[in-house]
Amino acid sequence: MAEHYLDNSATTVTSEKAAKMALEMMTVEYGNPSSLHKKGLSAELKLDKAYKAIASSLSVEEDELYFTSGSTESNNTVIFGVTQAKKRSGKKIVTTAIEHSSVLEACKKLENDGFTVVYLYPDKDGVVPPSAFEEAVDSDTILVSVMAVNNEIGSIENIERIGKIVKRKNPDAHFHCDAVQAYGKMVLKPKKWNVDSLCVSAHKVHGPKGVGALYIKKGARITPLLYGGEQQRKVRPGTQCAPLIASFGVAVEEFDIIANREHVLALNTYLKDELKKIDGVTINSSDNALPYVLNISAEGIKSETMLHHLEQSDVYVSSSSACAKGKKSYVLKALGLSDKLIDSSLRISFSKYNDKADVDAFLESLKRGIDTLAKIK
Amino acid sequence: MAEHYLDNSATTVTSEKAAKMALEMMTVEYGNPSSLHKKGLSAELKLDKAYKAIASSLSVEEDELYFTSGSTESNNTVIFGVTQAKKRSGKKIVTTAIEHSSVLEACKKLENDGFTVVYLYPDKDGVVPPSAFEEAVDSDTILVSVMAVNNEIGSIENIERIGKIVKRKNPDAHFHCDAVQAYGKMVLKPKKWNVDSLCVSAHKVHGPKGVGALYIKKGARITPLLYGGEQQRKVRPGTQCAPLIASFGVAVEEFDIIANREHVLALNTYLKDELKKIDGVTINSSDNALPYVLNISAEGIKSETMLHHLEQSDVYVSSSSACAKGKKSYVLKALGLSDKLIDSSLRISFSKYNDKADVDAFLESLKRGIDTLAKIK
Repeated sequence: MAEHYLDNSATTVTSEKAAKMALEMMTVEYGNPSSLHKKGLSAELKLDKAYKAIASSLSVEEDELYFTSGSTESNNTVIFGVTQAKKRSGKKIVTTAIEHSSVLEACKKLENDGFTVVYLYPDKDGVVPPSAFEEAVDSDTILVSVMAVNNEIGSIENIERIGKIVKRKNPDAHFHCDAVQAYGKMVLKPKKWNVDSLCVSAHKVHGPKGVGALYIKKGARITPLLYGGEQQRKVRPGTQCAPLIASFGVAVEEFDIIANREHVLALNTYLKDELKKIDGVTINSSDNALPYVLNISAEGIKSETMLHHLEQSDVYVSSSSACAKGKKSYVLKALGLSDKLIDSSLRISFSKYNDKADVDAFLESLKRGIDTLAKIK
Repeated sequence: MAEHYLDNSATTVTSEKAAKMALEMMTVEYGNPSSLHKKGLSAELKLDKAYKAIASSLSVEEDELYFTSGSTESNNTVIFGVTQAKKRSGKKIVTTAIEHSSVLEACKKLENDGFTVVYLYPDKDGVVPPSAFEEAVDSDTILVSVMAVNNEIGSIENIERIGKIVKRKNPDAHFHCDAVQAYGKMVLKPKKWNVDSLCVSAHKVHGPKGVGALYIKKGARITPLLYGGEQQRKVRPGTQCAPLIASFGVAVEEFDIIANREHVLALNTYLKDELKKIDGVTINSSDNALPYVLNISAEGIKSETMLHHLEQSDVYVSSSSACAKGKKSYVLKALGLSDKLIDSSLRISFSKYNDKADVDAFLESLKRGIDTLAKIK
């Protein structure tokens, strides 16, 4: 039976070329890129290629990029690193109520440590009005952290407008953007957007799990999270995971933002059109959301029940974020959705590898589920 | 020309089976192990196998293991996490002068934050006398951190005896062991040795770069370094790098400590016997060192000059630690070696894949280098 993987916001398959590169780096070009001999150098040259590809994809300089173990580490590095470096300038952090848990949990820790965190709320479409930042950002604000695209509903925040407001209200405030769900799917211009740091993750863009890239604008003050060797200008020490970085670079070289978006938009539109014909299905994502993510509710059927029903047809979607392991979605709650809709929510997330057969398999199994599964009273 | 890779303390080639597992996890079993559906579950099952293999190799429980991006992160997690959690119990840390930079630099940061760090010195063989801990550990001591095997000279610290002393002097002090260079090469028994946490790294044992395992004894108090999702009991959140962890597990299943040690000991003995016949070569490692690492000096010839000479014959060794990128070795300095010996030091480090031909190629090229290279005046 063919597999219908529609959970690409949780993780993606590594592309054949990217996986091949990882394999080559593990078994042939296995030198430590910090070693002074040829074997180290040839590993370093492969890394250089990845630095170039990723820097170019973000229109930033190569020496503004740091590789981490992923965006949980990147977000923590920025949130703790900036507040540590700037704690004498202020005590306030401004973020949104729908950030990834690695931002929200780090902020909670900072609240325990005496910082003030303001969580701005989105409208029903999942978009935080930029005007809210106008009010929240002040001279005490040292950090503003906003995601580019939400992982559960695909809403797109207006990073460019928020950046302008942040810098007008307080030019010294550090503006961080978690761009994990936006990367490879829309053009990101951190420099143009007044963004001081931005993180992306390989495993959401057909690269391997275990590596993320963190852009930190030259001159931005960040106390490192990790201490050790001389690697990565001591901002992020530790033997560089050369196979993953090189593999990530290959995945990025394969980006084709416009063509993929068109392809996914067609699938998304077809799916939405068909869903509208089914009784009891609500579409939670806005029409303005990124087409890669569609959040819906099949009313009366618990997300997990439906998820396990779908997997019997080899259709894979998720209830909310994979990181939350089935907990009630705080994102949907922040949008003001009813408990009934939240408890029956499903996230369908596309990649360039999906096709109409995947959508059809989902629709067919969903309909069967709605007809046959026990409803919550 | 055949490659003679004798820099296995810097990093190792990933074994064919381990690399194949990583590839399978990237391209077939690519689900997010936190996903609730079958695709996530089957990735999780592969991880379970790795947890089992690694837990068993350390004689610890599976739920005492955490996967990190490597030992820089593991050492930092313990050093900052323990001192943060225990800062009300004391302000003193005891360690050695020859720890890895990820321990020493983290300790330096703690000194800046108001902690006291005692750096114990080794004897000329690189062994810190356990009696030194007798004196140093007191009721104010919250953390003791000692490496099992030194990465530059292969000296073996007496972790079992130190553990006994630490716990007798202060049962509440946390005893951490950086076992990166010992893992797979000698039997490690953290529980028997009174060790509260211990870290190992995949890429030193023919697993992939970018992943390490951290044992934390149940009940040990550690404030997490990273905040985020529900993964790894929130001690180390973030999408688990399933391909690397599963691959690490395979590498560990391939351990054959006794056979490999015998094989490497024979190579080490042969190398030492031949080196003794060469004028101007000093052996810096003790006869009691782990046979995997041999540190020598070819007097009068700068390490880097010799290193680049050797690489012309495809022989790869290192000057000191790869993490230090050619800086003067603080380890050899701590042993009391003269600048002349330090500046001409070379580290030869073996793996199970090395053979006599590698040693012969090294010896031949070394002799040619001694005969032809310019000497420091």
